[in-house]
Amino acid sequence: MNASQTPSLHQQLVPQYESIRGLSKALAAQLSDADATVQSMPDASPAKWHLAHSSWFFETFVLRDHVEYYTLFDPRFAYLFNSYYEAEGARHARPMRGMLTRPSLDDVLAYRAHVDTAMVRAIPMLADEARALMSLGLHHEQQHQELMLTDMLHLFAQNPLFPAMFGAPNSMPALQPGPLRWIEGRNGIVEIGADAGHGFAFDCEGPRHRTLLHPHALANRPITNAEWISFIEDGGYTDARHWLSDGWAWVRAEGIEAPLYWQKGENGWTRFGHDGRQPVNPAAPVTHISLYEADAYASWAGARLPTEAEWESGALNISPTSGNQLDDATCPRPHACEQGEGLVQMFGDVWEWTGSAYRPYPGFVAAPGGVGEYNGKFMSGQFVLKGGSCATPRGHVRASYRNYFYPHQRWQFTGLRLAKDL
Amino acid sequence: MNASQTPSLHQQLVPQYESIRGLSKALAAQLSDADATVQSMPDASPAKWHLAHSSWFFETFVLRDHVEYYTLFDPRFAYLFNSYYEAEGARHARPMRGMLTRPSLDDVLAYRAHVDTAMVRAIPMLADEARALMSLGLHHEQQHQELMLTDMLHLFAQNPLFPAMFGAPNSMPALQPGPLRWIEGRNGIVEIGADAGHGFAFDCEGPRHRTLLHPHALANRPITNAEWISFIEDGGYTDARHWLSDGWAWVRAEGIEAPLYWQKGENGWTRFGHDGRQPVNPAAPVTHISLYEADAYASWAGARLPTEAEWESGALNISPTSGNQLDDATCPRPHACEQGEGLVQMFGDVWEWTGSAYRPYPGFVAAPGGVGEYNGKFMSGQFVLKGGSCATPRGHVRASYRNYFYPHQRWQFTGLRLAKDL
Amino acid sequence: MNASQTPSLHQQLVPQYESIRGLSKALAAQLSDADATVQSMPDASPAKWHLAHSSWFFETFVLRDHVEYYTLFDPRFAYLFNSYYEAEGARHARPMRGMLTRPSLDDVLAYRAHVDTAMVRAIPMLADEARALMSLGLHHEQQHQELMLTDMLHLFAQNPLFPAMFGAPNSMPALQPGPLRWIEGRNGIVEIGADAGHGFAFDCEGPRHRTLLHPHALANRPITNAEWISFIEDGGYTDARHWLSDGWAWVRAEGIEAPLYWQKGENGWTRFGHDGRQPVNPAAPVTHISLYEADAYASWAGARLPTEAEWESGALNISPTSGNQLDDATCPRPHACEQGEGLVQMFGDVWEWTGSAYRPYPGFVAAPGGVGEYNGKFMSGQFVLKGGSCATPRGHVRASYRNYFYPHQRWQFTGLRLAKDL
Amino acid sequence: MNASQTPSLHQQLVPQYESIRGLSKALAAQLSDADATVQSMPDASPAKWHLAHSSWFFETFVLRDHVEYYTLFDPRFAYLFNSYYEAEGARHARPMRGMLTRPSLDDVLAYRAHVDTAMVRAIPMLADEARALMSLGLHHEQQHQELMLTDMLHLFAQNPLFPAMFGAPNSMPALQPGPLRWIEGRNGIVEIGADAGHGFAFDCEGPRHRTLLHPHALANRPITNAEWISFIEDGGYTDARHWLSDGWAWVRAEGIEAPLYWQKGENGWTRFGHDGRQPVNPAAPVTHISLYEADAYASWAGARLPTEAEWESGALNISPTSGNQLDDATCPRPHACEQGEGLVQMFGDVWEWTGSAYRPYPGFVAAPGGVGEYNGKFMSGQFVLKGGSCATPRGHVRASYRNYFYPHQRWQFTGLRLAKDL
Repeated sequence: MNASQTPSLHQQLVPQYESIRGLSKALAAQLSDADATVQSMPDASPAKWHLAHSSWFFETFVLRDHVEYYTLFDPRFAYLFNSYYEAEGARHARPMRGMLTRPSLDDVLAYRAHVDTAMVRAIPMLADEARALMSLGLHHEQQHQELMLTDMLHLFAQNPLFPAMFGAPNSMPALQPGPLRWIEGRNGIVEIGADAGHGFAFDCEGPRHRTLLHPHALANRPITNAEWISFIEDGGYTDARHWLSDGWAWVRAEGIEAPLYWQKGENGWTRFGHDGRQPVNPAAPVTHISLYEADAYASWAGARLPTEAEWESGALNISPTSGNQLDDATCPRPHACEQGEGLVQMFGDVWEWTGSAYRPYPGFVAAPGGVGEYNGKFMSGQFVLKGGSCATPRGHVRASYRNYFYPHQRWQFTGLRLAKDL
Repeated sequence: MNASQTPSLHQQLVPQYESIRGLSKALAAQLSDADATVQSMPDASPAKWHLAHSSWFFETFVLRDHVEYYTLFDPRFAYLFNSYYEAEGARHARPMRGMLTRPSLDDVLAYRAHVDTAMVRAIPMLADEARALMSLGLHHEQQHQELMLTDMLHLFAQNPLFPAMFGAPNSMPALQPGPLRWIEGRNGIVEIGADAGHGFAFDCEGPRHRTLLHPHALANRPITNAEWISFIEDGGYTDARHWLSDGWAWVRAEGIEAPLYWQKGENGWTRFGHDGRQPVNPAAPVTHISLYEADAYASWAGARLPTEAEWESGALNISPTSGNQLDDATCPRPHACEQGEGLVQMFGDVWEWTGSAYRPYPGFVAAPGGVGEYNGKFMSGQFVLKGGSCATPRGHVRASYRNYFYPHQRWQFTGLRLAKDL
Repeated sequence: MNASQTPSLHQQLVPQYESIRGLSKALAAQLSDADATVQSMPDASPAKWHLAHSSWFFETFVLRDHVEYYTLFDPRFAYLFNSYYEAEGARHARPMRGMLTRPSLDDVLAYRAHVDTAMVRAIPMLADEARALMSLGLHHEQQHQELMLTDMLHLFAQNPLFPAMFGAPNSMPALQPGPLRWIEGRNGIVEIGADAGHGFAFDCEGPRHRTLLHPHALANRPITNAEWISFIEDGGYTDARHWLSDGWAWVRAEGIEAPLYWQKGENGWTRFGHDGRQPVNPAAPVTHISLYEADAYASWAGARLPTEAEWESGALNISPTSGNQLDDATCPRPHACEQGEGLVQMFGDVWEWTGSAYRPYPGFVAAPGGVGEYNGKFMSGQFVLKGGSCATPRGHVRASYRNYFYPHQRWQFTGLRLAKDL
Repeated sequence: MNASQTPSLHQQLVPQYESIRGLSKALAAQLSDADATVQSMPDASPAKWHLAHSSWFFETFVLRDHVEYYTLFDPRFAYLFNSYYEAEGARHARPMRGMLTRPSLDDVLAYRAHVDTAMVRAIPMLADEARALMSLGLHHEQQHQELMLTDMLHLFAQNPLFPAMFGAPNSMPALQPGPLRWIEGRNGIVEIGADAGHGFAFDCEGPRHRTLLHPHALANRPITNAEWISFIEDGGYTDARHWLSDGWAWVRAEGIEAPLYWQKGENGWTRFGHDGRQPVNPAAPVTHISLYEADAYASWAGARLPTEAEWESGALNISPTSGNQLDDATCPRPHACEQGEGLVQMFGDVWEWTGSAYRPYPGFVAAPGGVGEYNGKFMSGQFVLKGGSCATPRGHVRASYRNYFYPHQRWQFTGLRLAKDL
């Protein structure tokens, strides 16, 4: 144990821990045992699994490894709730997570309580390494909060009754986003990435390094649903010229004709969200689109996707805690596009696909040990997304944050902002 | 309504209805909402779905069609809980049954109560046609009781914690089955199949008709686990000569080395059942084997599978309600093989694979309307099984009963009895 | 060697051998090296493979095992050209047969010549067992002649240029088949199956045995293309009620709307055959249909498929060498339906699907050794077809002949004849 | 037609055209009609298809569009031999290329002759645009020469007889590569990419642009087979820690244990090449490895893959026509690693995987029209390879050349060179 930490810092950590852990529980409060158990596709996990796995992370990397006399809640849970840490041994196969009707949701909540009790007691005495792991665990927890929300949305979307997970929020004023404007970006050498000593960041966000920007501009706001409908109506999904070759194969094999969760009815397009099936709001940013769709739209519009460096450079002076993000257990959904000056809605609302492949930064080295598997091993085949969404817990995202998904995936709140060369 | 029925008959029907319907509910009493919701493979259905579908059958074919003023519990349930009746319109896709976390188990139990209330009130007044459909519905319910048990077993078998669905039954005495003996069967023309006027039978069991038996004998009892282990130890699963060509392809593609749910540990073979993981009982009939395995064993043993007609002819003078069958919500499992005279354990314990393809009897015509889809359309690619199992409700099976599965399927309590030509 | 055979019998065998072997070569005369090499689907084999495998059969079971001093043409060919005889050891995987660009067609023809030279020299001196194997080899050769024709047809059908394998035959008169008539069949106990001592038969055709026929009638002729078009136009392919459950799943998964090789153009239906793409002849028997389609048609027509025993009993007094069968290397195609008395076109034109699963006859025992794998191990999941087709070499088929295919397969010349209960 | 071109330039073009076109034909001279027809996997194409498609390119984009009175050889060939140009209309499905036994190899050679005659006559009169397309066609032809060689190798590797495509080259001296040395690379801003006005380059190689290099070093030579065997023997293929997550899934799903075409026998490792199955040469660069394997090796070795910019910057002063490349129709195979100064074997021998995703350069815009589909639409999911291989025609590759494959593909001559941060 390291006594050199000031009590005041430690005293802050406990409420932070409790606040973040509490949100996970609050988000699951609407779920039945069955809701929390079923896995709707291999990419998604059951809510129960998210709740247990995020607890397993603290139990394993903090309590088991750094806290004497800690007793595992159930030694079998390591097998059930390890996600992908090869160094932590064999584990339940990912596509089989939905088979675990036992332990029940109540059992998993008891597991959380057991871990939380031990954590709250241990936090004041954690040494630096363990405290860093705890901090990693809290950011990890926030990632799973967003995934739990989007995985539940995917599950509910499979139900012909279209159940709503949350009561509908207050109706929003019918805003009219202004025309898209181009904002010139920085040119020449800039620094991006996270600096090791300045607050928490995931390993893949660093090292902070210089990169060279070419003359370019970013759209002031994301593409809206109204603009997306124009793309559809102009035959965007049926004209191979706009599409990456892999994207075109995907569109044809899967019969893709609109964003995920959209349906066309007699009264126009509807979409499914945490508030159930609702009309598409033309003023809101389009969401639940794949990289392939984003790229095809940009091609159709005579533009391109921003690079990660362009996006991050553009976001440097914008507060990452601004915007429409997740604050509590209420319905997440993108807001209508704003009309402000400069770049708007960079943070929150929708993750913005970039044209950058998710690859390591110069000098990147994975952390040693189990947590070193956190990000580095996923650096093939995926694209970077920036800025967070309406389902990202406030405080979780920052300019250097690198989210990543495969180009066909679209069950997150994914959208796009155009860029162009100058 | 038909007033010609005597009250006494109708008065019998209500307790029969309540008894059968009550067993379904009792079997599900051990299940959590999550247990009852998850689907472990496309062949299986969630317990909740069984509970709802069997109620939908009464609601649709009896209450909706024959009872004035009946109000549907929820009009959307017809879409959710139709199994395969094309005439009843579009329906939820079978492999997606496990996505229905809503309605909950409680909702489904309320649905059952709604249907039961209406049925109990309606039964005394049902005309012949409706009463026949009610009777069909009760036998249908019993089929789903057995399927619910075997589907739950399959689900629990996917759980690395191996939960037991029922408390273990009293331990059984260590019986030693006697050596297998051959019982000569009837020869020449015999009558098999169900006669229309003599008690309930499914359409596919008739018409009763003459068939020609050739000289043959049946084994007096099923093959035991001890005998099956000899087959394994003699390389039965690795010698292509014993196997049907399709069976050999299946063994190799799936890596089959033993019956379903068996595992080999340091202390020998164990199997998974409703009482959890337990040692294999050498004296009990082997179960959870496919037709391919049954056929390979028979080939290895220098024998063959019985034909359906041979089996049915052999069973004619045996009480179909004898044997180890399902009486209440306790753990179903095969008993040790008996040592009695003649053919033993023909009914109960394990369904016995026959070598007969499931095809229509001479003169078979499917019933008109939706219920006509009951059996006839499944008459390709499947084999007949006879005699019922430990999970078959007592009173459900008879000599003419034709169960059928594809040759690779083995999640039912399936076993074998040898036959040979004389 | 067995000197007891009369020279005259042996003298007949050489020309018979040469005639049958010569037809295979003649059929392949139109094929380029590439034509003879490519495999168009796992169910089909390259022509070169058929030519080599049928030679390997003689080389292995006759020359290698029964002729002293015989030298294998190339010891590696046993690995390449064994089809499925597990007892003969490892072999090239079936779906990879089309990878064998070497040995070339010329090499394979040299292999044939090598085997033929040795066989012609050996035949006069073969003992009974070897002579029986030679006879089996000749019937085996004929089976592969038909398969080679239908496999080549499938390959050519994948080519957008629709090449014709043979010059078109003389145009046929525009016959008008009469209306379908019902011919009452035998009733009671009949004998079917092949008698061991009466000429060649495959093992699965016996033992000859008694079977019981129920009152029934057979259609006097096969269903025609004109009748099939009526089925299509009546929505036959889109109405689930007509279909076996497996058949309906197949129709929907594969998008089946017509027999294999049919296309609908501006001038009506065309079909692809060995003479290229041609208009569908309304008077000819429908062909290239699956069991599922045949069964659906029968259901739509208020009839059923004949059982094997009904068909065989009906064919007893008809010459099996009559009809439109393969005599030489000219274009095989079904002829217009005839108007004769009684049952017409039982042999030749199209294989007729029966409703009987391919299962062993009472008392069937597979032959010992490698050739014992000839038929018995395929007795699951397949249906029996009777009567031969326009691509069956004349002399190959007989009333007891049991052809068998899976219910979805239709690249053979498969058709149907209706039956009904009386 | 444009008369402003000097005759001398045009006179050079004809022999250049004939030389490049002639090499394709020479490479195919060893192939039978069957060899040239079969497709061994969807990624590969038949040799005949390569020969025809490269001719179609000239016929379509030069002769049809720019030469009056040119008559198409066969109008149906556009459908058969278009590869992926959506703008050129419907085309034969890629995985079905191997079904085209007709047209024959001879027909395709006649097609080539027809196109060549017209091209040689037209070249002196081509205007700038058409001449640029012809030049594109020649580089395109060279790409297909390499693909034809590697596709044939893949086909022959499926043949259990392991045929050699070429006679074995002279045996090489048993060189001993020196220990791997690190060569420091340039630092700071460098220019990479192809400049539009300086000789031929594919569209994706430009625009030339500035990029920022970080301190790094490259290995002086590729990794050898001997070093790769050390990786194998150290458990490289069985330790998840070295692998990208996608790579680890690929290794396990495919059962990967060594480079493609390697087999372990009693006398050690052998590999299959155009000279048949031969012992692995420990001194030669390892080849036929995927990006996943290359990345895992680098991780195991404590290094990383070079970025494209690092590699290209390192190659700037090295002659791209040096090295072991394809000059004529003889056996291509990597030579033993050299011991020279500085970076050796940058060009030729093996394509070197970089860690850079294949994405557009700043300012990249696809060319208008059909040829615009040349490269841009493939910019997702693939990685860049640099430097050419022993199967790359000499003169085809340059420092800016961007080859690209998916990370699991390895049937090209792919290898790796390590890099590290300084």
